[in-house]
Amino acid sequence: MSPIPADLAQYCDAHDAGALDELFAFLRIPSVSARSEHKADCAAAAQFVAEALTRIGFTTSVEPTPGHPIVVGEWRKAPAGAPTLLIYGHYDVQPAEPLELWTSPAFEPTIRDGRIYARGSVDDKGQLYLHIKALEAHLGARGTLPVNVIVLAEGEEEVGSVNLEHFLEREKQRLACDAVVISDSTMFAPGIPSILSSLRGMAYLEINVRGANGDLHSGMYGGAVVNPAMALARILATMHDDTGRIAIPGFYDEVRPFPDHVRAQMRTLPFSDDALMHEVGVTGLGGEPGYTTLERLWTRPTCEVNGLLSGYTGEGAKTVLPAVSMAKVSFRLVPDQDPEKIAELVQDHVDRVAPPGVTVMVEHLHGGRPWRADLQGPIIDAGKAALTAAFGREPVITGEGGSIPVVGDFERILGAPVLLMGFGLPGENAHAPNEWISQENYQLGIRAAAVLYEEFGVRGTR
Amino acid sequence: MSPIPADLAQYCDAHDAGALDELFAFLRIPSVSARSEHKADCAAAAQFVAEALTRIGFTTSVEPTPGHPIVVGEWRKAPAGAPTLLIYGHYDVQPAEPLELWTSPAFEPTIRDGRIYARGSVDDKGQLYLHIKALEAHLGARGTLPVNVIVLAEGEEEVGSVNLEHFLEREKQRLACDAVVISDSTMFAPGIPSILSSLRGMAYLEINVRGANGDLHSGMYGGAVVNPAMALARILATMHDDTGRIAIPGFYDEVRPFPDHVRAQMRTLPFSDDALMHEVGVTGLGGEPGYTTLERLWTRPTCEVNGLLSGYTGEGAKTVLPAVSMAKVSFRLVPDQDPEKIAELVQDHVDRVAPPGVTVMVEHLHGGRPWRADLQGPIIDAGKAALTAAFGREPVITGEGGSIPVVGDFERILGAPVLLMGFGLPGENAHAPNEWISQENYQLGIRAAAVLYEEFGVRGTR
Repeated sequence: MSPIPADLAQYCDAHDAGALDELFAFLRIPSVSARSEHKADCAAAAQFVAEALTRIGFTTSVEPTPGHPIVVGEWRKAPAGAPTLLIYGHYDVQPAEPLELWTSPAFEPTIRDGRIYARGSVDDKGQLYLHIKALEAHLGARGTLPVNVIVLAEGEEEVGSVNLEHFLEREKQRLACDAVVISDSTMFAPGIPSILSSLRGMAYLEINVRGANGDLHSGMYGGAVVNPAMALARILATMHDDTGRIAIPGFYDEVRPFPDHVRAQMRTLPFSDDALMHEVGVTGLGGEPGYTTLERLWTRPTCEVNGLLSGYTGEGAKTVLPAVSMAKVSFRLVPDQDPEKIAELVQDHVDRVAPPGVTVMVEHLHGGRPWRADLQGPIIDAGKAALTAAFGREPVITGEGGSIPVVGDFERILGAPVLLMGFGLPGENAHAPNEWISQENYQLGIRAAAVLYEEFGVRGTR
Repeated sequence: MSPIPADLAQYCDAHDAGALDELFAFLRIPSVSARSEHKADCAAAAQFVAEALTRIGFTTSVEPTPGHPIVVGEWRKAPAGAPTLLIYGHYDVQPAEPLELWTSPAFEPTIRDGRIYARGSVDDKGQLYLHIKALEAHLGARGTLPVNVIVLAEGEEEVGSVNLEHFLEREKQRLACDAVVISDSTMFAPGIPSILSSLRGMAYLEINVRGANGDLHSGMYGGAVVNPAMALARILATMHDDTGRIAIPGFYDEVRPFPDHVRAQMRTLPFSDDALMHEVGVTGLGGEPGYTTLERLWTRPTCEVNGLLSGYTGEGAKTVLPAVSMAKVSFRLVPDQDPEKIAELVQDHVDRVAPPGVTVMVEHLHGGRPWRADLQGPIIDAGKAALTAAFGREPVITGEGGSIPVVGDFERILGAPVLLMGFGLPGENAHAPNEWISQENYQLGIRAAAVLYEEFGVRGTR
């Protein structure tokens, strides 16, 4: 086991307090990409990242897009033959609502019990910023880096990275690299560093059902005019069969089974259904038959309702026959499902099952491709060494149920392998109130990233 | 055809302008019974009714209840042997939301094209107040009434009249009467006066589904933790079969078929599915197989979703697995279905179909019994004569899909027949934005009511 080089370790130790202060300032910017009223906050967060990179010696630019800007920082003074590493992260965050469920305000970072609570703390500002601090450790301690580095920070990850793919295509010469590292995922458990081998993709749809041209009295019209809220419920109920399998024709056609050895390794991980039920507070689990819970979460596609709205939802009773109903429905996808194709299958299915008397519109809000890692080569080896050095034990190989839609784009467009080395933890509330990152993991993450650059400099040199 | 007595007609003609001003003042009070923040407004509306009755010579009292007060006005100076008529109406109104869909403000009455637009204009303030003006016509023109009169105005009709039944029981001696008249319904069409022969009852439920103890990331947990929004959709979808029949076991057990001659008369009414579709803006109708649209609306029970809420419903995409979901579901009932029994059947059904992993609670918000009229006797004959005098043609006998839950209570507790003589019109938006009453019908209603008292005085005298 290679230790953390002493000069880097010393630099990190001396700068942990500042690294925390700077992260807090970053977290205070409410850069909610989904809400148009936060456009200026997203621009401010981009500027914050650019200035942090400029301060440590990077050449930076804030590139406008039709949505929120993309920050690119470049440092290309490594020795001849040194590889180029691209570090990707995102400065945008999920909406913070419902605000009343936060113990401390979403955009006022607060440490409790060793956790930094704030929207974006773990997803992904904390995990982006730890790389900037690790780069600073090299440049501060040694005045140089062992690899050329490109930092790419976008502001639309939480709304589907709608402009990133085009940006990668357009800038693929400038962004050419030997590997990509992304820290936007969780470790399997506290103290167990993890390399993530698979991500689910996503097709996120909004279904709107329209009936009459206005709300009607449910007594005067009920029983003859089709109810859009009931129609929506009936449409949603056709999406799974009674066993929990998704019943949309063709949905599973492109699913490529996970290799047996990956599934076998997953079954060796310490995991308990009871612990999951206790964590989230339920007395039973569900899902597709024939798979373990980890397999359902990591290797199988899903269909989830993310939101429902129709009619009267206030206090008491209102006897209204609603004019419209809405559902947000998202599908987690696995290789080789394609989001566009899935959206079309859903549209076809909805058209087939929608009752007469209502109009149903399916809008594809965004999608992302699923991904599976190759799990060999210099960047994977460097990642294993870096995590071992920082955490004192070998990482495990995990899957994840969430989506980082751009991972596949990086591999496809830049032709470089991607290492997913994350420092979140289970229960981190990434998309819920009281999001947090472990303060210790933020600090160990800085050290792991610093060693990663070192190890990749050695292993990846041509 | 008996004409309107000349003195009453003259009095009405001379006082139409004032009758409109007073109604406007009544409509400006936002007496929304469902919303606790309008408690004082409900009290103000009760006081308004009491003062209007006191002004014309009634002895009035405003009776507190655990909810909104009940106004009782009494005039008992009719000749010996004259019958007693109880006039029932309600001063509370539906919530006005969504406010942005009102062309003129909900609580600022505005006349456009011969219609008085305001929340409560037709349901039921306008139809309650026209009786007060008709009573005033007798007392103003003649100083007396041909019948003893009790006016009973409650403030909880839109939330299920939860305190009225107990009040009727408690005050049944004081409220003893020979007949009840209620104007809270619609005419079949403009110019076609109508006596309403049946009302649907109601069981209004709220279904809450709870999953995890907080919102979860749909990627991290989706596919293993049961989704309460999808579970709710699947529960709702079991409430009808594929033909449109309600599939809750036992639901139809107590349904008593309508007499053939009533159904035959209903089929003679001028009614067009196309006109209904055009009115509400849909291209198809639905409902239970084997019945015409009017039969579905008037004689058959229904199950409607009145509201849906779960998860993220704002702009854009949020990949949340919601912790809770809610549906407001109401059942329109027909004789002899019982609301309590139906609520129990629904509870049993939901318990049976709810998936493991979520908790489902069914709350019975309110209920009302269905009702069917006898269609004979002095009050029905007086109603026919009154409507004929005011509108120049005989009334038709109709049914209605809506609920006036207390009608059955009046018959049962007071032992008096009920006449439903309404002056609303199709398309009046009773529970929707832009509610209106025809200004002409408001005026003809005053005259019809005045003649009703006259005719009932003659026919009902013992």
